[in-house]
Amino acid sequence: MPIIPLLGLSIGVIGLIYALYLAQWVLRQDPGDERMRFISNAIASGAKAYLFRQYRTIGIVLIVLAVLIGLGIGVEYSGIIGGLAALSFVVGALGSMLAGYLGMYVTTRSASRAAQAARRGMGESLKVAWRAGAVMGLSLASVALIIISALYLAYRGVVPAEWGLPLVALGFGASLITLFMRVGGGIYTKAADLGADLVGKVEAGIPEDDPRNPGVIADNVGDNVGDVAGMAADVFESYIVILTGTIFLGYIMGLSPQLLELPLLYGGLALLATFIGLSALRASAVKDPMASISSTIYLTIILSIVLFFIASAALLGPALGLGRALLLALSASLGAVLAPLILKITDYYTSFKYRPVVNIAEQAKISPATVIVTGYSVGLLSAVPVILVIAAVLGITYYIGYAAVTPYVANFQQYAGFLAGIYGTAIASTGLLSVAGIIITADSFGPVSDNANGVVEMANLPEEVRNVTDVLDSIGNTTKATTKGYAIASAALAALVLFIAFIFEVLRIASSALGSSISLSGLLNSISLVNPNVLIGALIGAVVLYVFSSRTLGAVGRTAMEIVEEIRRQFRERPGILEWKETPDYARVVDIATRHALGEFLIPGLVAIAVPVITALVLGWQALAGLILGAIVAGVPRALLMANAGGAWDNAKKYIELGHLGGKRSEAHKAAVVGDTVGDPFKDTTGPSINPLIKVLNTLSVVLAVVIIAVNIHAGILLSGLLPYLA
Amino acid sequence: MPIIPLLGLSIGVIGLIYALYLAQWVLRQDPGDERMRFISNAIASGAKAYLFRQYRTIGIVLIVLAVLIGLGIGVEYSGIIGGLAALSFVVGALGSMLAGYLGMYVTTRSASRAAQAARRGMGESLKVAWRAGAVMGLSLASVALIIISALYLAYRGVVPAEWGLPLVALGFGASLITLFMRVGGGIYTKAADLGADLVGKVEAGIPEDDPRNPGVIADNVGDNVGDVAGMAADVFESYIVILTGTIFLGYIMGLSPQLLELPLLYGGLALLATFIGLSALRASAVKDPMASISSTIYLTIILSIVLFFIASAALLGPALGLGRALLLALSASLGAVLAPLILKITDYYTSFKYRPVVNIAEQAKISPATVIVTGYSVGLLSAVPVILVIAAVLGITYYIGYAAVTPYVANFQQYAGFLAGIYGTAIASTGLLSVAGIIITADSFGPVSDNANGVVEMANLPEEVRNVTDVLDSIGNTTKATTKGYAIASAALAALVLFIAFIFEVLRIASSALGSSISLSGLLNSISLVNPNVLIGALIGAVVLYVFSSRTLGAVGRTAMEIVEEIRRQFRERPGILEWKETPDYARVVDIATRHALGEFLIPGLVAIAVPVITALVLGWQALAGLILGAIVAGVPRALLMANAGGAWDNAKKYIELGHLGGKRSEAHKAAVVGDTVGDPFKDTTGPSINPLIKVLNTLSVVLAVVIIAVNIHAGILLSGLLPYLA
Repeated sequence: MPIIPLLGLSIGVIGLIYALYLAQWVLRQDPGDERMRFISNAIASGAKAYLFRQYRTIGIVLIVLAVLIGLGIGVEYSGIIGGLAALSFVVGALGSMLAGYLGMYVTTRSASRAAQAARRGMGESLKVAWRAGAVMGLSLASVALIIISALYLAYRGVVPAEWGLPLVALGFGASLITLFMRVGGGIYTKAADLGADLVGKVEAGIPEDDPRNPGVIADNVGDNVGDVAGMAADVFESYIVILTGTIFLGYIMGLSPQLLELPLLYGGLALLATFIGLSALRASAVKDPMASISSTIYLTIILSIVLFFIASAALLGPALGLGRALLLALSASLGAVLAPLILKITDYYTSFKYRPVVNIAEQAKISPATVIVTGYSVGLLSAVPVILVIAAVLGITYYIGYAAVTPYVANFQQYAGFLAGIYGTAIASTGLLSVAGIIITADSFGPVSDNANGVVEMANLPEEVRNVTDVLDSIGNTTKATTKGYAIASAALAALVLFIAFIFEVLRIASSALGSSISLSGLLNSISLVNPNVLIGALIGAVVLYVFSSRTLGAVGRTAMEIVEEIRRQFRERPGILEWKETPDYARVVDIATRHALGEFLIPGLVAIAVPVITALVLGWQALAGLILGAIVAGVPRALLMANAGGAWDNAKKYIELGHLGGKRSEAHKAAVVGDTVGDPFKDTTGPSINPLIKVLNTLSVVLAVVIIAVNIHAGILLSGLLPYLA
Repeated sequence: MPIIPLLGLSIGVIGLIYALYLAQWVLRQDPGDERMRFISNAIASGAKAYLFRQYRTIGIVLIVLAVLIGLGIGVEYSGIIGGLAALSFVVGALGSMLAGYLGMYVTTRSASRAAQAARRGMGESLKVAWRAGAVMGLSLASVALIIISALYLAYRGVVPAEWGLPLVALGFGASLITLFMRVGGGIYTKAADLGADLVGKVEAGIPEDDPRNPGVIADNVGDNVGDVAGMAADVFESYIVILTGTIFLGYIMGLSPQLLELPLLYGGLALLATFIGLSALRASAVKDPMASISSTIYLTIILSIVLFFIASAALLGPALGLGRALLLALSASLGAVLAPLILKITDYYTSFKYRPVVNIAEQAKISPATVIVTGYSVGLLSAVPVILVIAAVLGITYYIGYAAVTPYVANFQQYAGFLAGIYGTAIASTGLLSVAGIIITADSFGPVSDNANGVVEMANLPEEVRNVTDVLDSIGNTTKATTKGYAIASAALAALVLFIAFIFEVLRIASSALGSSISLSGLLNSISLVNPNVLIGALIGAVVLYVFSSRTLGAVGRTAMEIVEEIRRQFRERPGILEWKETPDYARVVDIATRHALGEFLIPGLVAIAVPVITALVLGWQALAGLILGAIVAGVPRALLMANAGGAWDNAKKYIELGHLGGKRSEAHKAAVVGDTVGDPFKDTTGPSINPLIKVLNTLSVVLAVVIIAVNIHAGILLSGLLPYLA
């Protein structure tokens, strides 16, 4: 009996039930007075309208790609595998869409409730926001675990020998949709934010979230379609990609089910630990909510690690020996420990408790330009420790895998030690993602309290209520900023695992197509660093990243410009708005943001699909391998730079707003606001889209490997690529 | 008789004589009145003092490294080779220092003369500035060609079988010193510029280069030690590195002297073409000086190409057959054509004649933040066509080399086609660098007219004189901006050539150390993309780049802050300064800039040396190969981004200053000034240091390969690196 997948499935179902219970509880809370309900309905309906229009556009891409995948794999492989791969692709995509929608639904509904609860004090509001976050955390992790376990069981039953490829197609669907949602939502949220702030705060001098600002609803809609739906889809997708990627790697290596199913085991156990961790946030949290949230995360991770060791010893010990079983648990644990480590590093570079952000703030005494330069410099530096930690975990867990798994590698015997090592790293990445439930909970807490704060402001609730939601909002900002590092680290490890899976999938396909006439070592030799196809591919990888980043950044500027003009027009033509005599036309700004975001998200996404496919077909799969590596090496540090510089600028501004260096409305504050505004699209549009971009490149390559290799063989460029490299 | 090296040597000597003649002519011009001479003396002595203090610090590093290189190679290889390599290292380093000093000397002396000539009209001033630039262009190219030809001849005589390694050590010395000069000078120039502008232009409201500003002399000194000395050393170093790198690659391949010496032939011919091109700038240039400068460049390149084809047919035709001879000329020509192509692309993204810069300027109507975001987006996009063009030249010339050179590869027979292909690309990179003389002339023209403009301003010369130097200054800005792309493209191609040279140097050393027990294909297999050591190395490469960029950017902010405070203090404590009643204390600002620049340049430089060496010794040479690739893939696009975003911001500001969008002193202008100020350290400090950084990593690896491999063999990690990859 497949005990581990069934265990994963059951824990997933329990998690989903738990999430539904919490959702019920949240919805039972008082949604506040009529004005508050009006505001949150306006936000919810704007967000829903945007998501549905986006899903409709995506739907067409989805159907076309599903047919192409089914046909391509069907022709080159077998009809049933093609069909199942297309099915997985669609399921993965729908999962990401659902995750995004769910995030938006829960957040918009819970914001007014958290705002209303704030009338009764910090503890009550914190409880509502935290439980709303938990609904997200639990349901995403549970749904992902359920989907993977169920499809794994189903495919093993239907196509016992070839279940790997259809399973991994799940990740392609999930990452592609996430890419679209990240880009579209990111443009929406930052353009609306920027436009509303520039005219409202800077020109008209009215506070943020002031109901007189025609852009205020669009700004809040943006928070939901960008931060919430985007982040939810992102972590959901990371979970799917890492777990299916690890399982697929094990499948390629020919591991026994027991070893192969470890990701489902660790994922289930960590979800179990999350149940306990979540409920550990108690009333005492009111004193120092941030510290309590942190200890909740630590508790969950410690519990997960304990469970990893116990379960590994019990389930794997008898077959592998206790030593090897514990080594695997150690690998997963190192991955799980990576999460708080990265949170700490990110916190150091982005919180005003530490020197880097204070340095940025001090430059505000000189000019906005030095704020930008110093913040950029801090962002660059912040990438360094994160990458070094990732590299260290990669190196150590490689050794662990090498020691623990080598004898069990059935395929590619001559590379058994290597594959075992990579499997060790893959298990670490599973460990990192297994604690996603609690991380998303802490992360989703952010937008809920941010939105609650907005509702309080827009509904003109009393000062003491605003003080409560202000505190929670600033905590939410911290949790949001630090989880970005987590998402990027997971993308880096996922990319590595999938990259190796891609290469060995190529070796498998090539040797099954050409038989003994082809040497594996010759094929591996052809992706040596000196192959010019690889070098050109690596440069193209950097180019894809740059086109993508440029388009997404530029889109924010273009969209914001139109929003600024619309808001200025409303203020000019209807002066009653600023005197509280007229209601602004919120819908027009919502419409501009929606139209632009929808117009701009497709091209970057199609570049991300078309360029790697064309590269692989024309220059050979070696160039594609180079492209992926180039995108990772240029992309991971860039994602960290953009996320952390953005976070640091944000908090440098907050530091000044707390009264340092002249406080609000000083020249220094104005300079810091420029930094914050530059940081916004860095940290919320372009930076976060780099994760799914890297994963799309990766999963696409794995899924389409069979088609690419068939074309390469046909064109006679299998062994070295288009530019002759090996004789 | 070694006809080609002697030809190179002779043309080099003629070029040097020509340069001396032009220098004499420039120095004979009228240096202006007493005030002008005072100003240019102050600038010259500040620059000289800085350079000498920097050279003293560098001297210590130089001696230590020369001894280490001599000892390391001496012990592992042979005493004489170690000694010669140390000698080459010192000669290369001294060459870069000399280039920097010469640049500073000529520019500071010619600025006041160009200013004085401007009294007699545009034509006269243009002639002085152009000839001063030509002194630089000719002398740098000539000295480089003389050094390479002479050492090549000498080493072939002294150590006929092993002359390759000592020759290539020349490049390590040159690039290391250039790295130091770029970083130190870049920090100096931008911190002084920023500090002087922020207090002078923004706070006190006095014009740029106003003599009342205590930072004005430091600002002008900075132009000389940063832009002039830095750029001169940079292109000198590129020339040395590319020509010696190509010759070294030919040496490793076992090419005949005729093929091997091609770089000296093409370098000499292009210098000959430069003599003619230079003198083609005629009096008619006054109407449209920029167009005339461009046609001078085109003329030189066309002449060079004609000479390439004729000389190749005559000298190589008989031995190789006409077809192959012409193919090699074609490769060099494609390289030479790359120069104007990149100048054009850079011009498109950084000139206000085109859409991208106008888009940035239009964002200035909204806020400084959108100027930054849009400029950054333009910078990202600008990297794309440049990289694609480089990749295309790489691919095409690889095919050319493959077709032309394969039968002549004597070593590494099983990789003959591959090495021949790379040699084709190396010849293209030689072609690109061969036209350096005319490119540096156009580039050096920039700082001369910039400084002349400063002298005119500081000496209070009449309006009509200022109008002349203003026009020339803005042309100088354009030539300066576009040549940056040239320097980066040359670094990219040089990196590629040296990277392959490094790998095959490793194969050569390993197989000579271990003999037949080691397979070349096994060694190449160990730098396959999937080796975890390679992946970790690539991540470390990105980290080196990020640490380096962060430190240099941060240093500008830190230094500027102290300068701002000093200038503010002088204005505050001695109010007479602003009323023209007191002379400001220029020396204190010069001192602050000098002290900081000297304090900050050493650490980034030592990181660039220490990290790759440690990586190679601990993780294995495979990790070092990954590191270099990571630095190239992350570094080349980043260098383009920083240079072009900086240039675009600069010109967006100038576009507004011409009266668009509200013109000078409008809100839009203020916003554009922020963009320009952010762009300054991007384009003049960090961006340009990335070139020599990449080349230091490369040349260091080639020179130290013998030591690294000995240690790797000793540690038992030669075949796969520290993490077990191949059984």
